Amino acid sequence: MKLIVLVCSTMFSILVFLVIVPSFAEVDITYKHWGDINLGGLFPVHFYEESVQDCGELRGLDALKRVEAMVYMVRQINDNKTLLPNITLGYEIYDTCSFNAIALKQSLKMIPAQRLTSQCLSNTTDGPLPMIAGVVGAQRSASSLQAAILFGLYAIPQVSYLSTSDELSNDDRYPYFLRTVPPDRFQVKAMVDILLLYRWKYVSFINSDDTYGKSAQTEFRSRAADNDICLAVARTIPASTETYDELISDLLDTQSNSAHSTVVILFVQLETARNIFTAAAKAGAYRRFIWIGSDGWGNYGLEPVLNNEEVALGEFTLIMFYPRGVS
Amino acid sequence: MKLIVLVCSTMFSILVFLVIVPSFAEVDITYKHWGDINLGGLFPVHFYEESVQDCGELRGLDALKRVEAMVYMVRQINDNKTLLPNITLGYEIYDTCSFNAIALKQSLKMIPAQRLTSQCLSNTTDGPLPMIAGVVGAQRSASSLQAAILFGLYAIPQVSYLSTSDELSNDDRYPYFLRTVPPDRFQVKAMVDILLLYRWKYVSFINSDDTYGKSAQTEFRSRAADNDICLAVARTIPASTETYDELISDLLDTQSNSAHSTVVILFVQLETARNIFTAAAKAGAYRRFIWIGSDGWGNYGLEPVLNNEEVALGEFTLIMFYPRGVS
Repeated sequence: MKLIVLVCSTMFSILVFLVIVPSFAEVDITYKHWGDINLGGLFPVHFYEESVQDCGELRGLDALKRVEAMVYMVRQINDNKTLLPNITLGYEIYDTCSFNAIALKQSLKMIPAQRLTSQCLSNTTDGPLPMIAGVVGAQRSASSLQAAILFGLYAIPQVSYLSTSDELSNDDRYPYFLRTVPPDRFQVKAMVDILLLYRWKYVSFINSDDTYGKSAQTEFRSRAADNDICLAVARTIPASTETYDELISDLLDTQSNSAHSTVVILFVQLETARNIFTAAAKAGAYRRFIWIGSDGWGNYGLEPVLNNEEVALGEFTLIMFYPRGVS
Repeated sequence: MKLIVLVCSTMFSILVFLVIVPSFAEVDITYKHWGDINLGGLFPVHFYEESVQDCGELRGLDALKRVEAMVYMVRQINDNKTLLPNITLGYEIYDTCSFNAIALKQSLKMIPAQRLTSQCLSNTTDGPLPMIAGVVGAQRSASSLQAAILFGLYAIPQVSYLSTSDELSNDDRYPYFLRTVPPDRFQVKAMVDILLLYRWKYVSFINSDDTYGKSAQTEFRSRAADNDICLAVARTIPASTETYDELISDLLDTQSNSAHSTVVILFVQLETARNIFTAAAKAGAYRRFIWIGSDGWGNYGLEPVLNNEEVALGEFTLIMFYPRGVS
């Protein structure tokens, strides 16, 4: 059996989801509607579960809203007779499950060779699948990077809506990649500006174990050195295997250098931030730390601190700002 | 037209190469001989050239020797009637051009879906290609990592002969990856042991901009902190776009902190080391630095310092050691 996701949408993403998940063994979610020119889409609809090495739980509404935004936009363009007269756009959207290997698996379905030969594999007489002219996605930098390596080989343009890693700024390596969001060095610069404003000279930096977190750490180390900011605890943490209690106990350790550090930068994804706050609450670390958060979890409102609000009191989070009137 | 590489070998790699390279536009080098069970191979026969975004010059003899070693071993096994009676091994070897995107392109040729449908694409009646049971390779960690992400999706076992990055030790992420070489944390430990032996407490660390160099830097930073070793200059340098003269001038800068640092660790690949030594010679930096080199270039004898021998005087390089009698 296959995973079946039916998405019914009105103009503003009223979502009805019917999800049958008998097994994690196969990722086979497609949300498609073909037109004359077809766009691929890569969105993290589910989380990745490392223990089963496949897709796990559904992510929140935000991920689904982005899927719907793409579909809505394609429909709006098709309904407008002046934008692309006599041409209809189509879409074919896949779930990356927030993981680079799944992003690669889904991206493979969009390259020309796979599509030309789809009829061989399915033994139908439908003819080959229509080509994908370009791809919207992915969300996470690690997934976008994986897609960019593949799409680069086949000259398929790719535009990400949320991948901010500086690694992706390398036009020589990823010539077909573009994005509508600024790279992370601006975010890191803003963080350092906050530190300088409050004269916080001794801070900890926790980042996720992917291109998003790692390249931010590199950028931060360089900017921190230039501004005489010292690092107490610096840690790269994997998404799912880290013992968060140990991290909190390192941050709290009164015998170590970090005893005088109260400022902790969390350059991580949503679920990691949530785990860290839960561990901090368990350790009773109330009003002990000033957290500074990246857009990886800063974009999610109260979700990362839910039930641990008191631990997060006084946090700063960075989110992207789009001034009105700027197109 | 296509790149054509004919490799004729006797038992101990007497190599005759006929190379016709009219254009870099296509990578299509295969060295194959099918048997009942077929092994894939990934070797960097050419360098990658970023300016043309494709394969560039031929690498040295070492890369070719490794290709020949695989072919030789397959033949030896086939010639031995007791090892695999009534079964012949085959091989299908591709050039990764020392780059992760090309490694991905070549690895794609070995996954089941591509092989099953090869007849559709070629319009022949030869039937599908035989399956690849497992893959030997790749050489560079970044290429192996790329292959491991793909082969992990299709449960194809992969054994690398020279990829040492610690990143590849993550069994949850790369469950089908194995290697015959130790991970880099042992190499970094040996470097730190050398530093401690000579009481060098203030050193520079230069690493390549890939998983090999970056994870070594992370490991080194952690070990250095534990042993009160300070970093003068730390730099991650891309393979081909770095201005090496600038790096050397930073290392030589008498106004900066690095003025007192003479020890420079080079955790880079062969060609980067060569470029750094050339730049150092150009700057007249003779007997100014003590270089400590990783196996990325330490394995290549005099090749990295050729024509710049005097600059490299007194260097330490680490290479892998296989004690006799240990299998």
